[in-house]
Amino acid sequence: EARSILLLTHQNPDIDGLSCMLAFTLLFPEKAPLPLVEEIPSNASFLHGFSRLKLTEEIKDLISPDLVILFDASCERRISEKLRAKVKDPKLVLVFDHHQREDCAELFGAKTYFIINPEEASTSILFYRFLKEAGFSLTPEIAENLLAGIYYDTGSFRYENVKGDIFQVVQELVTLGARPSYVAQALYENFPLSQVKALRIVLNRLRLLNGGKIALSFLTFEDLQDLGGERAINDLASFLRSIQGVKYGALVKEVEKGRIKVSLRSKAPWEILPLAKEYGGGGHRYACGFQVKRESLEEFLKDFEEKLVRLP
Amino acid sequence: EARSILLLTHQNPDIDGLSCMLAFTLLFPEKAPLPLVEEIPSNASFLHGFSRLKLTEEIKDLISPDLVILFDASCERRISEKLRAKVKDPKLVLVFDHHQREDCAELFGAKTYFIINPEEASTSILFYRFLKEAGFSLTPEIAENLLAGIYYDTGSFRYENVKGDIFQVVQELVTLGARPSYVAQALYENFPLSQVKALRIVLNRLRLLNGGKIALSFLTFEDLQDLGGERAINDLASFLRSIQGVKYGALVKEVEKGRIKVSLRSKAPWEILPLAKEYGGGGHRYACGFQVKRESLEEFLKDFEEKLVRLP
Repeated sequence: EARSILLLTHQNPDIDGLSCMLAFTLLFPEKAPLPLVEEIPSNASFLHGFSRLKLTEEIKDLISPDLVILFDASCERRISEKLRAKVKDPKLVLVFDHHQREDCAELFGAKTYFIINPEEASTSILFYRFLKEAGFSLTPEIAENLLAGIYYDTGSFRYENVKGDIFQVVQELVTLGARPSYVAQALYENFPLSQVKALRIVLNRLRLLNGGKIALSFLTFEDLQDLGGERAINDLASFLRSIQGVKYGALVKEVEKGRIKVSLRSKAPWEILPLAKEYGGGGHRYACGFQVKRESLEEFLKDFEEKLVRLP
Repeated sequence: EARSILLLTHQNPDIDGLSCMLAFTLLFPEKAPLPLVEEIPSNASFLHGFSRLKLTEEIKDLISPDLVILFDASCERRISEKLRAKVKDPKLVLVFDHHQREDCAELFGAKTYFIINPEEASTSILFYRFLKEAGFSLTPEIAENLLAGIYYDTGSFRYENVKGDIFQVVQELVTLGARPSYVAQALYENFPLSQVKALRIVLNRLRLLNGGKIALSFLTFEDLQDLGGERAINDLASFLRSIQGVKYGALVKEVEKGRIKVSLRSKAPWEILPLAKEYGGGGHRYACGFQVKRESLEEFLKDFEEKLVRLP
């Protein structure tokens, strides 16, 4: 099956990547590009054109597109394997991304053009500027998708990436017909019940160390099974950090019997990344994590707590 | 004690009113106006000029100012009694407010000018436009205070009042030197421990009615005493509404033995105001409340639940 334009985003697709894919798709109501994903997150169903997303299992043959456009990632290894396996010999690849440039020179063995700016808060902003410069006229639906990407990647304008002329861009999208409170409600008034239950457990287990400077909580393997898996507990580590007086937040998750995953968050200027690195993990200075293999969650918690209380 | 300019806001002062008072104060570094409050909320300490706020008990004599400026309210009855009692015969009163115009023709018995626009999302925006038109040059500190008022009154750009050219105004404030993520962190990464405890109780008592369309929880008088009073539980009703599938959220608080206060929230287009009115309460269509006198919290909950489950 040959499609002329194939749209991709990274694995575990999020609102920013999907919003760009769908915005682009909506530019071509007739001969539509193919927005292909390996899974569809439930919080994305409010995006316009959502039903056009195609899952890999719906595509039987290999795809040989004229053009692949990859949003919100700049390396093949960021794309799920299942999805990568579907793509054969594209003629050209175009990348739109706002993350730090990676070491990939070309993707899928094809000539690749990179449009990357790590100064932008989201790929939606970067892509909006491109569409605007290229003279496309954007419908309210397209503008609203792009706005959703901005809300998502800035945590509703709360993260450190909110700078420059971001609000100017948002104003332009609103003028085009995007509805801020609609997007915000879809993203933030839509707390899955599994998250509510996870939050209840996390709060009931909450421990404040070093006079309230460290917030620690955990979920056992049994908790995660009841909740429906790790996905159910998206971003509760950030909640721990948001408690008054807390500098460092840590959420420990026994994702499998014998495998423990830890999400770490800190308030600037206190960096938590060094702790993640001690355990072989990585990420951003104030938001990172690591995984370890340990048979006993209890023992890990004991060791980990000793490390935590030594933080500056 | 005669002061030429006295700055006031409504009782239970919030970030929007305080940000305007302090922004105005910072315009006059030498002969400062007097920003008078009956209490100082703890989440306001990041505002620039915060230490200039004066409490009523620090002022011994009556104040006879040339000018009173009231922010974020347009009627004398919105000001705390203790504070009102300090003010004697001002020459002139000026009101800046973004709420619906009330029935007061003049305040403190003086000629009063009203600058009111209920279309604006916050008084800070309204006041910013005024300062800009008047040609004041605003420092980064003043711009940041005004930005804080906008973040606060829009719930970080999530409420329905986010419309018009609000992002244009925000961009102007950022250009003047206001730091969005600093403000957001001060407001939203600062969850008081009492709130965390209240949230834990509310989650442990959470009941989902009508197949998850109604979220109900409650706090007893004893809970509230432990938590440090009603103030500790600011806005948990909105949290109930934010659960996926929930149309109506209700938080019942036994604020005194025999007195029950209920906060109601709904997702548009489902209005919850009619229920508040049934109990003699009021507010907005999607955010309102009421109070009743009842000896037994349990019996009230039983009655109230019957009313709740009949909601459309």
